[in-house]
Amino acid sequence: VREAAAFKGKGVLVGIGDDAAWLKTSQTSLLTCDLLIEDVHFIRGTIPARLLGRKALSVSLSDIAAMASIPDYALLAVGLPPDIELDYLDQLIEGFLEVAGEHKLEVIGGDTSASPLVIISVTVLGHPLKKGPALRSRANPGDEIWVTGTLGDASLGFELLKKSREQELEISELHYSSLIVRHFDPAPRLKAGLKLGPLANSMIDVSDGIMNDLTRILEESGQKQNLRAVIHLDQIPLSDDFKKFYGGHPLRSRQALSLALSGGEDYELLFTAPRGARTEIAKAGREMDLSVTRIGKMEKAKTREIILLDQKGRKVPAPKLWFEHFPRQERNRN
Amino acid sequence: VREAAAFKGKGVLVGIGDDAAWLKTSQTSLLTCDLLIEDVHFIRGTIPARLLGRKALSVSLSDIAAMASIPDYALLAVGLPPDIELDYLDQLIEGFLEVAGEHKLEVIGGDTSASPLVIISVTVLGHPLKKGPALRSRANPGDEIWVTGTLGDASLGFELLKKSREQELEISELHYSSLIVRHFDPAPRLKAGLKLGPLANSMIDVSDGIMNDLTRILEESGQKQNLRAVIHLDQIPLSDDFKKFYGGHPLRSRQALSLALSGGEDYELLFTAPRGARTEIAKAGREMDLSVTRIGKMEKAKTREIILLDQKGRKVPAPKLWFEHFPRQERNRN
Repeated sequence: VREAAAFKGKGVLVGIGDDAAWLKTSQTSLLTCDLLIEDVHFIRGTIPARLLGRKALSVSLSDIAAMASIPDYALLAVGLPPDIELDYLDQLIEGFLEVAGEHKLEVIGGDTSASPLVIISVTVLGHPLKKGPALRSRANPGDEIWVTGTLGDASLGFELLKKSREQELEISELHYSSLIVRHFDPAPRLKAGLKLGPLANSMIDVSDGIMNDLTRILEESGQKQNLRAVIHLDQIPLSDDFKKFYGGHPLRSRQALSLALSGGEDYELLFTAPRGARTEIAKAGREMDLSVTRIGKMEKAKTREIILLDQKGRKVPAPKLWFEHFPRQERNRN
Repeated sequence: VREAAAFKGKGVLVGIGDDAAWLKTSQTSLLTCDLLIEDVHFIRGTIPARLLGRKALSVSLSDIAAMASIPDYALLAVGLPPDIELDYLDQLIEGFLEVAGEHKLEVIGGDTSASPLVIISVTVLGHPLKKGPALRSRANPGDEIWVTGTLGDASLGFELLKKSREQELEISELHYSSLIVRHFDPAPRLKAGLKLGPLANSMIDVSDGIMNDLTRILEESGQKQNLRAVIHLDQIPLSDDFKKFYGGHPLRSRQALSLALSGGEDYELLFTAPRGARTEIAKAGREMDLSVTRIGKMEKAKTREIILLDQKGRKVPAPKLWFEHFPRQERNRN
């Protein structure tokens, strides 16, 4: 790690090689730490080390994006089993540094340790825009609910990947490779966070599907009065490949609905904003060449809940959570 | 974790409950992250969860102490196996919060995750004194070498603990309990770091024994010219219990020497300072009621090395490293 990240950037006073890193920091800072554990958050054989290194940092950066903040520094600690291939760590670090380079943050330290399993701990330090970070706790009744990009791709990609392994297909033989890329190599929405955060009242990144992450906004914002979210299912943004997989009518499939709403690992931004922000949000989306879709509305309510409506405005029961369809290991909850 | 650490301190703008913590920070910050892995850094059955929680934070604070800095915030992420006792996490957090309280830092976030093993990731953010942190890289020829407290206690304590388990003794039946406490519950030398750091040219915490940690100072400080360290073995500070265990003549035992010089987990401060600082160092030690012992000197040299001298000034070969005597799992290298 040391050699790969030996450069001292402008903000690094002491990097790798001392008891701790010494950094220039802003008046306020954002700090997040994620733990990725083999057989829980990833399966070693299913993800190349370089992509795992990329994903480890991207997932943490998605948290910084959801705070409408700028990442400055990252620390990487890795636990490695003795039987690991010789260049596994090199490739993991390479992927990690690639993403660090893409988003202009500095890798200031790291540590490796023996371990029975591959374990990755990522710490990211950043700073907010002057206005302050976007929080989960400031959604208001009347806010409209928006989401960037498309939903369900990563979890459908993961399902296809599992299927391909059962059938012993090469990844290159698979259709729908765009979905599999979404699973392997999520893009943290940092630019979108900075553009949309100042327009939003509340914001979160979609790591566990919007049913779960919207619930978190309802919980954090609903401390004084209960809020409910009304979601129009026909407005949920889906990719062409996702629609194609479900024969062009994904809404008719309860499985598709489950993946789109609670599959997780979308790493898109989910936010609420006042109606008056519509024009500016649309403009921001055009400038970034990123779809930003209005999917519903926040309302004052007696009970905290998410209401799903079909095209005709009829209530639809919430789909089973994705992991009820597809039992597997618990995943990262951040 | 959330409920246990729900307080918002003066510097915490947003703590647990959002994508990242938002904090007031100084112009410069210290950042360190440690990973503790079951069966590598600790054995679950040998350390109670509360003490493991204490030690997890203490070990990271020792890094901050060695930078002559003040810890402000800590993040805790824990991976827990499904078969763990119900109150294991509560006790671990309790211990962690105890140490946080003792050193007035705020626990600002945390995360738990399923895991095949107990895994603990600790991130600490702090700030240095105005003069800046004490580094490893600024030792000069002519500097005298000092160490706080006594050496070898924790590793001898660990050996006794292993022996007691083989013989199925209760811990309370053991003599030398002070040594075992040093293994279980190291005290990070934060006050000493702040007092001694400004007097020191270089400083490190003794996590892997002074042979290893002094080598790190020689490496980091010897980039322009080689340095060697000359250590007087009869000046190595040893506790009464350590001496008693070895019949009052520890220097005659190669095993004792090995534990004292390379046993590790002492978490004392090792530092170098100019001769002129002697009086102030002695005064600081008296004020803290902590022994601070001069054990040798830095010299210009052709080769980077550590020279050990006995009472009569004769060269003594370096003892085998402790883990050559006592093979066991690799330990934390921070």
